[in-house]
Parts: sequence; structure tokens; C-alpha cells
Amino acid sequence: MALSEFALIERYFRRCGAHRTDVRLGVGDDAALLAVPGGSELVAAIDTLVAGVHFPHGSPPASIGHRALAVNLSDLAAMGARPAWALLALTLPEADESWLEEFATGFNDLARAHGVALVGGDTTRGPLCISVQLLGHVPAGEALTRGGGSVGDLLFVSGTCGDAAAGLAIEQGQLETEPEARASLRERFLWPAPRVALGERLRGLASACIDVSDGLLGDAARLASASQAGAELGWADVPLSQPLLEVLGEERARELALGGGDDYELCFAVPRQNIARLTAQLPPQEWRYTRIGRLRTEPGAVVVRDGSVMEFSHSGYEHFR
Amino acid sequence: MALSEFALIERYFRRCGAHRTDVRLGVGDDAALLAVPGGSELVAAIDTLVAGVHFPHGSPPASIGHRALAVNLSDLAAMGARPAWALLALTLPEADESWLEEFATGFNDLARAHGVALVGGDTTRGPLCISVQLLGHVPAGEALTRGGGSVGDLLFVSGTCGDAAAGLAIEQGQLETEPEARASLRERFLWPAPRVALGERLRGLASACIDVSDGLLGDAARLASASQAGAELGWADVPLSQPLLEVLGEERARELALGGGDDYELCFAVPRQNIARLTAQLPPQEWRYTRIGRLRTEPGAVVVRDGSVMEFSHSGYEHFR
Repeated sequence: MALSEFALIERYFRRCGAHRTDVRLGVGDDAALLAVPGGSELVAAIDTLVAGVHFPHGSPPASIGHRALAVNLSDLAAMGARPAWALLALTLPEADESWLEEFATGFNDLARAHGVALVGGDTTRGPLCISVQLLGHVPAGEALTRGGGSVGDLLFVSGTCGDAAAGLAIEQGQLETEPEARASLRERFLWPAPRVALGERLRGLASACIDVSDGLLGDAARLASASQAGAELGWADVPLSQPLLEVLGEERARELALGGGDDYELCFAVPRQNIARLTAQLPPQEWRYTRIGRLRTEPGAVVVRDGSVMEFSHSGYEHFR
Repeated sequence: MALSEFALIERYFRRCGAHRTDVRLGVGDDAALLAVPGGSELVAAIDTLVAGVHFPHGSPPASIGHRALAVNLSDLAAMGARPAWALLALTLPEADESWLEEFATGFNDLARAHGVALVGGDTTRGPLCISVQLLGHVPAGEALTRGGGSVGDLLFVSGTCGDAAAGLAIEQGQLETEPEARASLRERFLWPAPRVALGERLRGLASACIDVSDGLLGDAARLASASQAGAELGWADVPLSQPLLEVLGEERARELALGGGDDYELCFAVPRQNIARLTAQLPPQEWRYTRIGRLRTEPGAVVVRDGSVMEFSHSGYEHFR
């Protein structure tokens, strides 16, 4: 049953996400009108998911809707920003109503959980491709950036790394596991939990922050490079989940945690003089983050194991390589 | 020669568009940081171009870059907003450097002409698909919307309609023409000129505005519907270009002007009490707009020819129909 573009928007997207009083005009006009709070800067990110590139063909539609927003929430989290408004550009091979309903549910549930209103978008016919643009705000001058770190700052990462990469391998039939670990790792790929609350709380504590989307080692290198420094990570310090350890064993688990993508954790640098305040205000066992290394003078990112520097074949996933 | 995603962004997009001092942080971090002027509302639009849907495969890359931004500039023009910042989500089958260079040139030239800075984006591998998100601002409470019109308001459209649809037909080899008309009509499709200056000047004069992207009749119907009214257009009043008249003759030219898409003109309603001010402040021969009809009580949009209402097979281009 074919739905027109206008009926599709009306049915699935007009009342999607949170209700916000700062939306002066939402879905349905040529553009959205939004009231940005005084004293704040606007924060804007855009990220695209392409079928067969960012998720396997046939992924659960609700997971695709969730992930399309989650990857952008993660970008705003890395800036220490509060997300507020999303625009959705949805390119679909066909207007399949059950697909759309599930996709909208996945998007909507995560949007409401973070108080994000869907304020505009565009639906077109073509190969499945979803671009979400997320807008938020941060008190002027207080945003976290990649470039604020200094040599000597300690490096941390939230959660555990490598789980989503293992989950994707499971989705693609490249990794066999026991049912329990399988469910846990798939969940980390299909339903990433962006660290928005942590990002906001890190303002005034962290000197630099990046979201881990292309692999911890590569993203730590990017933070370090933007901060005119290098990064040294401890092999034994990279946080691993129990399911990942069970499935891969420690050696391969650590490799995947360093090089795999799609974690959507935060990697952040904290000056030594802020460490006491960090652990007091954000107890690590409650906020789940781990010290993984430090910023150093020598450029690049290295992993130190038993006192020796390790070599890696690649440092993060890049498109177009 | 394969370029990494990071090299690609660095080479083609880091210094793309206008330089703006209100960009606190542009391309290269997880998100952009932007200073929205006090007393204004943020205006946000997103539009996607898909190869084979919105432009023929093999279109000039510079035209694709131009159009990807132009369609969004047209959305902001329809709100009476001033464009400021763009984010670009570019999905490409391969990192073809000459294609990218031309695409970036087309985008960059139009961005600079309108003072728009490229502040962020995302490049991914996949079927050619371009989403541009455009941000701008408007004095609080002064934006033009589709829904502000009233019965009795006069309807106008800028420029001429139907040219771009004819230009697309030429591009697709479906329409044969003389070289001169051919060049003129192709140009209207490949290099649309969004009416940003007119949109801004219409604030305080027009009661409602929409950009004509899906066909004049359909878009006038949308403006009327949002304004709880209907639209009556005069068959003989629809403005046509000389090349379109030469190529198609008057009958087919008027049909294409009413039903064709991709004009990126502005259709706007003006209360009768503002007409004298409109023509004084924005002389029609200078600003190139034409009265085409009026808002009336009966819902829907009709075209009146020699006193009779005409029937049409379709009222504007919809995806998913």
C-alpha cells in the first residue's frame, strides 16, 4: 500500500520525539523555527547511516531508527552539549508501512528519552540511507572539544569497548557465540547508549573529549592530535566486557576494543589537577569510566604492553580507504 | 587514487563556504559550535538529493553541489530567514577526486554568494546521495510561514515556472530544442537561483510563503491548506519564460509551469492592505514577481481559465506515490 510523502510524514513523523516549548514551528513547513536559550552556543552535528555500510541489510528497523539518532547524540555528548532538536532525511526504496512504523518507534523512543523533538526532515525515494541532523546547545564557551587537552592529562573511556564490533560480526554471521553473550553483544551494536549525561557532567572537568565511533585507538589519536599531543594507552587498561572476553579471549578482545568501531563511548582527557574533583563528582563505579592512558609529547597513538610499544595494522575504521 | 575520509574532508571541505566570525568551531570536531544572534530564532532545514531521483546520473558534479545547497537556501528563503551555516552529509560510491573537486566548487561558490559557512558534515561510502542541512536565523516572531495567509490575500510567484522541469526533460533526452532555448532551460534546472533576498524582504509584507519545489499548483495548495483556505490561480497569469513558450507552446508551457517541479521560486500571499507597500518597496519589474491568483474560502487549489475551472491529472510531484 503506497503512502504519499505527505501522508507518510503526517502519520509517522509529525508527533515524533519529545514535546518542547522552544519549538516555535516543527515538522510541516519549509523549515523549523527554534528558540535557542540565551547565553548558549548552538551545537550541530550530522551523521548518515547507509544500508550495507553502517548496518547489515535486514537489520531490525527499530534499531536503525535508534542508531540513526544515537550516533548524533554521541557527537553532542562529546561536546558536553544538551541535545534538543533533530531533523531526519530519510531515503527509502519503498514506503513499507511496517518498516516505517518500527523505524519511527526506535527513533521516537530514544528521542523522548533524551528530550529531543523531531522538528523537520525530508523523505525521498532511493537506496536506504538515513541522515540525522541533531541540534543542541551548551553554555557559551563551555563546550568540550577534541583540541583542549595538554601533555600530561590523563585519558579515560566510558563503558567497555569492542562489544559493538563483536555484535556486528555476529549480525553478519562472522562470529559464533553462546546465546547469552550473543544477545549482550548484539545489543551493544543494535542499541548503542550514547553517553549524553556523562558528556554534560564532564564540562569543567575534562579538557578534551571525542566520541569513540571509529575505534578507541584511532579516536584517541584524533583527540591527541587535535590537542597537539600524542596518546599512550595501556594494553591492560582498556575496559572489556565479560561477554567479549568469553567470546574472544583476552588477546583478541583487546585488539577489537582498540580497533573496532561503533562503541559510542566517550574518550576524554582530564588534567591531573581535576582528577580528585572528577572522581568525587562522578564516581567511576557509578558513571562507569576507566583510566586508559595519558597524553604525551610524542605525536601519534601507541599502546604499551609490559613496557613495550605494540604495533597495529590499522588504527580505526575509515571510509574510502 | 583513494583518499581517506579525513584527507577528503581536509582537502575539499575544511575551508568551504564563507568565513563567518560566529562560527566558534567548524569542520573537524564531533559537532559545530555556532553563535546565534540574540533576539532571533534559529531556522533549520534539511533536504536530500539522490542520484537518479533528483538529478540524472552523470549530472555535472558542480551542479549537484550547487543544487544540494540551493534547495535548502530556497527553504530558508520561504521562511524569510537569513542563511548562515550548512552541514553536508555526502554518500559517495567512490572518492573520485575530480568529481569531488567540482562538487565542492559548485557548493562553495553558492555558499559564498550567500554568506554561508560549511561547519560540519559526514562522508560515507554508498550510493550517491547528498543531504544538506542549512541553519539560519530570523528576527524572533517575524518568520514567514505557510500558514499565515487569509482568505482574500493575493497570491504571487517569483520568476517564471516550468523552466526547470523542461530543463530536466532536456537533460533526460525527452525534449528536443534549439540550442539557445536548450541552454537557458538546462541552466534553470542545473543552476537554480534561490530567492533568498526576496524572502528576507517579504517579511512584514507577505502573510504566508512557500518555496515552489514540487510544482506551483501543488505548492500553492499547500500554502492555502496551511492557511485554512483554498487557492485560485489564473491560467493566463502564470508567468512563463520566452524559451519555455518557444519550446512547448503556450498550452503545454502553462501545464508544465503548474505541475512541473524544481522551480525554487517563492509563492507568497499578500494581504490587500499591504499591496501598495509591496509594490513600492519591492517594484515587481525589479524583483520579478507576478500576481497569479488569490486565497479563497473553498479548500483545494484550482486554475481558472476563461471563467471555467480546469482539471489536472496531478498537482505536484510526490515521492512514494
